[in-house]
Amino acid sequence: MLDPNLVDNLLAGDKRALARSITLVERSGPDAQVLLQQISPHVGRSYTVGITGPPGAGKSTLVDRIASDLRNRSGWNGSSEAPKVGILAADPTSPFTGGAILADRVRMQRHYKDPGVYIRSMATRGSQGGLPRCTRDAVKLLDVYGTDVTIVETVGVGQAELDIMGLADTVIVAVVPEGGDAMQAMKAGLMEIADLFVVNKADRPGADAVVRDISAVISWDTRPRDWIPRVLSTKAVEGVGIAELVDAIAEHKDASEQSGLLARRRSERRKRELFEAIRNDVDREAQHLISSDPTLSNLVQQVESGALDPHTAARSFLQAILHPTNSP
Amino acid sequence: MLDPNLVDNLLAGDKRALARSITLVERSGPDAQVLLQQISPHVGRSYTVGITGPPGAGKSTLVDRIASDLRNRSGWNGSSEAPKVGILAADPTSPFTGGAILADRVRMQRHYKDPGVYIRSMATRGSQGGLPRCTRDAVKLLDVYGTDVTIVETVGVGQAELDIMGLADTVIVAVVPEGGDAMQAMKAGLMEIADLFVVNKADRPGADAVVRDISAVISWDTRPRDWIPRVLSTKAVEGVGIAELVDAIAEHKDASEQSGLLARRRSERRKRELFEAIRNDVDREAQHLISSDPTLSNLVQQVESGALDPHTAARSFLQAILHPTNSP
Repeated sequence: MLDPNLVDNLLAGDKRALARSITLVERSGPDAQVLLQQISPHVGRSYTVGITGPPGAGKSTLVDRIASDLRNRSGWNGSSEAPKVGILAADPTSPFTGGAILADRVRMQRHYKDPGVYIRSMATRGSQGGLPRCTRDAVKLLDVYGTDVTIVETVGVGQAELDIMGLADTVIVAVVPEGGDAMQAMKAGLMEIADLFVVNKADRPGADAVVRDISAVISWDTRPRDWIPRVLSTKAVEGVGIAELVDAIAEHKDASEQSGLLARRRSERRKRELFEAIRNDVDREAQHLISSDPTLSNLVQQVESGALDPHTAARSFLQAILHPTNSP
Repeated sequence: MLDPNLVDNLLAGDKRALARSITLVERSGPDAQVLLQQISPHVGRSYTVGITGPPGAGKSTLVDRIASDLRNRSGWNGSSEAPKVGILAADPTSPFTGGAILADRVRMQRHYKDPGVYIRSMATRGSQGGLPRCTRDAVKLLDVYGTDVTIVETVGVGQAELDIMGLADTVIVAVVPEGGDAMQAMKAGLMEIADLFVVNKADRPGADAVVRDISAVISWDTRPRDWIPRVLSTKAVEGVGIAELVDAIAEHKDASEQSGLLARRRSERRKRELFEAIRNDVDREAQHLISSDPTLSNLVQQVESGALDPHTAARSFLQAILHPTNSP
């Protein structure tokens, strides 16, 4: 049973209510569904910044510095107070890297003393790469809890960048000069999704060349756009370039709000979420029907044995479960 | 309309029929569906080797050398002839990398003179990372065409490794000594999916340490297993270690066949394909219904505007389209 005060406590900015709520959506289940439904009318005030890029690009340090900078500036959303910041970091669970990543988190502990910053690591599930599915829900919970900005950090490239598109209002792609990171970022399609490029560790050799290369590729794209991606240099460990980066985030936010890009992105995102929910519900329903309906479980067995091809079986399956007037 | 002779020509080992068939499944559409249904009874003879790993691990060269080695050995599947080999390579389409990857392909052209090798690049779609969805279908077409071994090469890590699990009978994860590739492979969950690890460019410093590290992690996993992953060293450019690698592939094949692991993997794969087909069909059906049914399109608009939460809308949607006795 869902605690009847949970949503009220969350709306009141109670950190423990937030922690418990995120744990609920991490575990999934019916309570999480009820919670998400109840908070739904309150979602949409906070701004979400996603940061992705290859491992080793210094993303955790960048997030740390962005948070510090935000906490020391006023004027966000026209308020005289410093914005409240939420940080969600995808933490891979692996024998090798658990330690290293946790060390990054330890560095962030100075924010723990700041009641205006909430940090949470989300365990990534198995070999999925990318973001845990519940990250999107956690972003909503942080929004309802009262953060003005939520920063979501993802590990690696690949599926992660698509995921980050699905929840961030501003997408930052971070690379370092060496190792062909920038090229790999292009390869992975990050070009298409970045609002801001950050070349971090900019004191290393080749940084200027990488900035030029990325800028060149951006300039090749002559399609009309609401926002032309910007390329910035940082030395996150020393805090160099961070104020300019946060300025650029704010500029992208203002531009997106004024051009209607933000509204379009968010509306597109909600639509995508609907279709994902439909797919998940159908999946669950299909699993349920297979275990209860002998005809359907027989269909699955035929596919498993190779006697029936999956596409033909899928059509039979849908004909059996869909409303007669809606059958394909 | 599907060429009525296409499947017969494919079964007869006609290369042009194969090329046309792969193009069909790349384009998707109804003809592809009919084709896949028609070849379905003939699928399952060929053995599929997947190779994945971080960019720069020398995967293309490894594939090239494995193919050459296979073409110079007899005894595969107990036949005195050299096995026919198919190669499918995921080619990212990107301003930066198109050239570099094509250069790799050019290196492979010596196989073009060999009628026993068929090479095809599959364009990866946008920022998806991973394998194009039609790769699995192309593997089936190569099987029906008559390859004994099909090698599938993927770029990058992330979603790709899940994809490769979904189609390969033996999964090879390739890394190079430097750059923490092995650690990244662990991070990305490649540990879980590799049947064979290859430390390529093994003459570089640190190679022995990487082999030891990977072997150590493998030994930590004390769960009962049908196959304990093997770690091999190669210098693919010089052809060093390739014969041992192909031996290891053959050993994994034999072991999987004898333990029933291969049959279980393939049956699991067909089941997964069924559920994917169901999801895709539901997606298509849902799109169709939304455009034709005012109640449903109104539901979507409410989600887009934020008036209705996606999860509630998904349930209403399913209630509308599912057969009454099957409604959730």
